[in-house]
Order: sequence, then C-alpha cells, then structure tokens
Amino acid sequence: MANMKLMYSPTSPYVRKVMVVALETGLDKKIDKLPAATTPVAPNPQVVARNPLAKVPSLQAEGMTLYDSPVICEYLDTKHRGKKLFPAKGKARFNALRQQALGDGLLDAALLVRYELTLRDEPMRSQAWHDAQMLKIGNALDQMEKEAGTLRGAPTIGHVTFGCALGYLDFRFADMGWRKKHKKLAAWYEKFAQRPSMKATVPPT
Amino acid sequence: MANMKLMYSPTSPYVRKVMVVALETGLDKKIDKLPAATTPVAPNPQVVARNPLAKVPSLQAEGMTLYDSPVICEYLDTKHRGKKLFPAKGKARFNALRQQALGDGLLDAALLVRYELTLRDEPMRSQAWHDAQMLKIGNALDQMEKEAGTLRGAPTIGHVTFGCALGYLDFRFADMGWRKKHKKLAAWYEKFAQRPSMKATVPPT
Repeated sequence: MANMKLMYSPTSPYVRKVMVVALETGLDKKIDKLPAATTPVAPNPQVVARNPLAKVPSLQAEGMTLYDSPVICEYLDTKHRGKKLFPAKGKARFNALRQQALGDGLLDAALLVRYELTLRDEPMRSQAWHDAQMLKIGNALDQMEKEAGTLRGAPTIGHVTFGCALGYLDFRFADMGWRKKHKKLAAWYEKFAQRPSMKATVPPT
Repeated sequence: MANMKLMYSPTSPYVRKVMVVALETGLDKKIDKLPAATTPVAPNPQVVARNPLAKVPSLQAEGMTLYDSPVICEYLDTKHRGKKLFPAKGKARFNALRQQALGDGLLDAALLVRYELTLRDEPMRSQAWHDAQMLKIGNALDQMEKEAGTLRGAPTIGHVTFGCALGYLDFRFADMGWRKKHKKLAAWYEKFAQRPSMKATVPPT
C-alpha cells in the first residue's frame, strides 16, 4: 500500500489525536505529513481541496480522502493488528465514543474562544459568547474529573481525546489553571502525558 | 429494556438525524422525547445535566448517557435487526462516516452563521466570519453535488445526514437557493425527502 497522506498542523489538537493514534498503533511510518496552516477566515486552498470544510486533519488513503478526526482515527485503528483503541462493540465502545465526543466538544469550545480573541477586532467580541464557551469547557472538565477513576488499562480513543484536550488547554489556556479543581484528572493526565505518543506530539511553543 | 430518553428539539438538525435513524430502524416507539430548547448563551440546565457541552441531542439508554449525534445514531443502529445504516467495515463504512462528517460540518457552519445573526447585536457581527462559514457551506454543497450520483440503494448514515443538512438549509437559509447550482443533489433530495422518516421530522414553521 502507498503511504497515506495527512494534512497536518503541529498546533491542531485534532491532528494531534490522529498522530497519537498513529504512534500508538505503529502506523506513523506509513503516513506522510503535509504541513498546512489554515484559519477559518483565511482558508488554505490545499486544505480545502481535500476537505470542503477547510479543516485539518484530512487523510488520503486507498483512493479516499477521509475527515474529520474521529473518522480518520477509526480508520487507522482498522489498519493494524495490535490492541484496538476503538472497542469493537457494546457499552465499552459507546463509552469510548462518548468520551471522544466530550473531549472533541471541549476542543470545539476552546477553538471558538481562540477565534473570538484572535480573529475579531475588540469591538466585535461578545463577552456572552466567550463566557458560554468557557462554561462548556468548565463543565466538560467537571465531567472528565468524575470519570478520571475509570481511565484505566489500555488506552482507548476516549483516553487519547481527553489527553489531547488537556494538552490543548495547557498550550493555549495555561492561565486557566484547570488542575486546581480537577485533581484526579490532573493525576491521570500527568501519567498519560508521559506516553511516547504524547511526548512526540507536544505542540511547539 | 426500559424506554430510551432523548433530549429533543424539533428544530435541531442533529436531533432530526437521530429521529430519522429511529424511524428508519423502527426504534421510534422505544424512545421517549424530552422537549428541551437551548441556545449557546442561555444553556438549559436540563440539557447540561445530561451533556456538559450543553447540546441536544443526548440519549439515555442502558445506564449510559450518550452524545453527540454520530454516537447516538451508531448506538441505535446496533439495536435493531433490519438493514444497517452504518456499513460494518471497509470503504463502504468509511465513505458513509466521511459523508456524515461532511453533512455535520455543513450544519456546524450553518449554526455558526445563525448564532452570528441571532445572538449578537449588529456591531458585534463579523462579516469575515459570516462569509467564511457561508463559503464552507457552499464548498460542502459542491462536494455533495459531485457525490449525488453515488447516493443509491438502501440509505446509509451518510444519506441521512445529507438529507437533514439540506432540510436545514430549506428551514433556515431558504433564500440561498442551493438547488440552482446543485441540480443532481436537488433531484436526489426531492426523492429522499419523501421517505416517511423525513416527512415525519420536517421542522415546524
């Protein structure tokens, strides 16, 4: 099989999910990374050509172009013979998929805050919108804290997404000090962040 | 099994996806709908209690609370014995999942436009942000038009999501006249919209 091609940005937490999955499953050497910076208001034509939604990551493989990150991660998980990150069925599967949606939802809210602060001149910023997104982040963290004790055993896509979401808060929202009120989650993350897949994908400062 | 409970809004296109899947699979009678209006800046506590991201739909079933719509739809598809909406594996599966991401991504952009126009006072609206989201919608429609000829046979979650995305454009963006430049897609939708599952879930005017 020809190498897969990944539209890649080292600062995108959704790209990080894909790379963590690739590293955990030994598929990273079969993926060529195509660097592609993009923003909502200045979409990169190279990115749009592969994903009409103008977002990274997208993955070209077997004549398909796949997006978004949950689809790419599940696809990669079918292409190796090791321990699966997506449980095959039943409650284990749907709990992992729900955790992925929770971590991705935290990230969606965090990105909307970033766009509010970086893509709009000050008079066009809405405090109510900003606060609503920050509340989602806080509520998501509270839920993740409740689940921290269950994050045991071999990592699932839920664990990977929690890890990338928390890594993004450290990267872009360091001031919010999420660890203070989420001590079990912080203890879990401290260990999870030591995995080689996580250490190899820390966003550049 | 006790009935499932769905946090429900008749105007949410993501809720519509879930209801179309429920109707297509004969599971609708096993779902109790709990009406729950919510907006990003005025989150409904009943909604937040079940989904920290403060969004509908969420589904309570078997002691779990599941979100978001792709997770709920896939869960429901494991609970019936008819023709599956999620192909089991291979290219058919990943094409259907990618199409779902495309339709959901169109909807995410459309919702951001709605929020820009309805939740912000005029001076806080960004024309660049509005235009960027409208461009995503247009590019997604162009891609769907290219794929219209492939939307044959028993419906998949990809077809359902395309249908709900186009239905939402008719509901909230009727002025944009998406059919004019997307004639194959319009022809496909005209037929798809006649399915009983689609007719039973048209948003109220």
